[in-house]
Amino acid sequence: MKLTLNLGKRSYDIIIKRGSLQNVGKLANLNRKVLVVTDNGVPEKYSDTVLKQCKTGFKCTVPQGENSKSMQTYTQLLQQMADNNFTRKDAVLAVGGGMVGDLAGFAASTYMRGIDFINCPTTTLAQIDSSIGGKVAINLGSTKNIVGAFHQPKAVGIDPDTLSTLSQRQFAQGLAEAIKAGLIMDESLFNMFENDDVANNIEQIIFKSLVIKKDVVQKDETEQGLRAVLNFGHTIGHGIESLQLGELYHGECVALGMLAMITDDELRQRTIKVLKKLNLPHTIKYNQNEVYKHVCHDKKAQNNFIKTVKVKQPGSFYFENVEYDDMRKLIGEGI
Amino acid sequence: MKLTLNLGKRSYDIIIKRGSLQNVGKLANLNRKVLVVTDNGVPEKYSDTVLKQCKTGFKCTVPQGENSKSMQTYTQLLQQMADNNFTRKDAVLAVGGGMVGDLAGFAASTYMRGIDFINCPTTTLAQIDSSIGGKVAINLGSTKNIVGAFHQPKAVGIDPDTLSTLSQRQFAQGLAEAIKAGLIMDESLFNMFENDDVANNIEQIIFKSLVIKKDVVQKDETEQGLRAVLNFGHTIGHGIESLQLGELYHGECVALGMLAMITDDELRQRTIKVLKKLNLPHTIKYNQNEVYKHVCHDKKAQNNFIKTVKVKQPGSFYFENVEYDDMRKLIGEGI
Repeated sequence: MKLTLNLGKRSYDIIIKRGSLQNVGKLANLNRKVLVVTDNGVPEKYSDTVLKQCKTGFKCTVPQGENSKSMQTYTQLLQQMADNNFTRKDAVLAVGGGMVGDLAGFAASTYMRGIDFINCPTTTLAQIDSSIGGKVAINLGSTKNIVGAFHQPKAVGIDPDTLSTLSQRQFAQGLAEAIKAGLIMDESLFNMFENDDVANNIEQIIFKSLVIKKDVVQKDETEQGLRAVLNFGHTIGHGIESLQLGELYHGECVALGMLAMITDDELRQRTIKVLKKLNLPHTIKYNQNEVYKHVCHDKKAQNNFIKTVKVKQPGSFYFENVEYDDMRKLIGEGI
Repeated sequence: MKLTLNLGKRSYDIIIKRGSLQNVGKLANLNRKVLVVTDNGVPEKYSDTVLKQCKTGFKCTVPQGENSKSMQTYTQLLQQMADNNFTRKDAVLAVGGGMVGDLAGFAASTYMRGIDFINCPTTTLAQIDSSIGGKVAINLGSTKNIVGAFHQPKAVGIDPDTLSTLSQRQFAQGLAEAIKAGLIMDESLFNMFENDDVANNIEQIIFKSLVIKKDVVQKDETEQGLRAVLNFGHTIGHGIESLQLGELYHGECVALGMLAMITDDELRQRTIKVLKKLNLPHTIKYNQNEVYKHVCHDKKAQNNFIKTVKVKQPGSFYFENVEYDDMRKLIGEGI
């Protein structure tokens, strides 16, 4: 399956194909210096498969986990390119999950004011959501994605075979973004989670999720308006994630964050049922003040209110500006 | 005097007016949070004049000098914005020379994936050249401008009165970029340096220099081709600058770097005469290998050659790809 994200000069193809990691060279020019970025939680064979296809490949393996989305690791990638005389014509290629893509993409976006970036996501989360759309970023302290850029990749190669090496928990957390896509814009996708076997339909789920994201990004590349819909579940979700409560994954936090933003009780119950089916969390207790503090740092924060996305019926959404005091109440003591 | 840089949605005005620092609020919206960035070599009254005009102003004074264009100082600016809950609607404003503009502009370009940037240059160098065009960057180790972005300002306010507090040497070094502009594209500007009193004609010199830069940037915003002409004198100039030889200023290094790229002996002699008139350096000895090493790191470096700009007749230029070995010879033991 192939999708094309149409953004004029910045357009690019997204390939969804089993085994495509063997043929990244067909998607993008690897006949140059390429910094292959991965993390030590990603099976080494994936990055090696890509590295072998590069004319002059360099590998950088960062530690797994959100802590690598730091100024320090970012600087390390830039330094490795500078030390190896990377020019404007060279490229960065990510092999891994959303963390690797965000970090590598941000390094690509700023090295020599922007060089080519190629993304080969290997997790459900990244294949379903974060690998397309061009949002790249690192964290500053515990504030997520506060430093970043819009830098579209040159190509995205999605090989669903790589999902086979994920733990069940890792596999499931990425699905939260697909549930999100269904809730805001595609009832049929949400229904698949209610009625079908998810693992057997994973390619279709990835495809349907990316179609939604692609349409939104094409209409609003730099998040001037509509694109904020993709933040459904992320406002409070990021707040929870920042607390590192029990080391919850991003998708797990989004799952929890979505529940707070579903305004219909019956739909909330249906969503909880889906989350249970996938072994995703549907309840949590936390310190209200700490979550609130992080939500106010969030990039969606405006002057005296926070723009949120809410869902009442599956497949449709609405924006609502929530004042700071009301946000505190919405956050509450837990989900 | 007013110029408009036409770049569609990213268009902006450049005002050249004595006393305009008192009225920055007329150029740009200061009715929000504004991080005013300056350095401790800039008279404090300039940044205070601007700060007073901001609804909610914060000041960050970094140490004077190229060392502040570092990952560390960049991180410090971002942290100050995060600590004060800056949102996407807030802004960064630079009051100072090229270093301050590059650093503050890069912070603005990446904070929350890009917020507004306003530039009030207070040095000849920045008023003549670096404050317009959107190239922002920091250094990595001794490699200049290797990490950065294209991020156009929202407005540029040039107040020539601020030049009165510069040392003679600082005043003169900025003129190197105007000599550059004349040499590559405007013989009448070059002739002004040969025949006229420079200080008395400074507004005209700033204006003429910016007209040239504006035209080039409009034709090639992200340096895909033509814009590289503005790097005349910078290839070897940056190499010299990286060595910190006797702490030469940027403009002084560009002056020296231009001499290596003028291919007509008579014109080189005329240019040396102009440099002498302005007390700018026209000769230097250095370690060939060290300059060569830095030139190869330069962002203009291609796979096996370096794209250079050369001038034979004032007001016209040509591009020439110089292979690495020939570049070593061109660098030589000095200028």
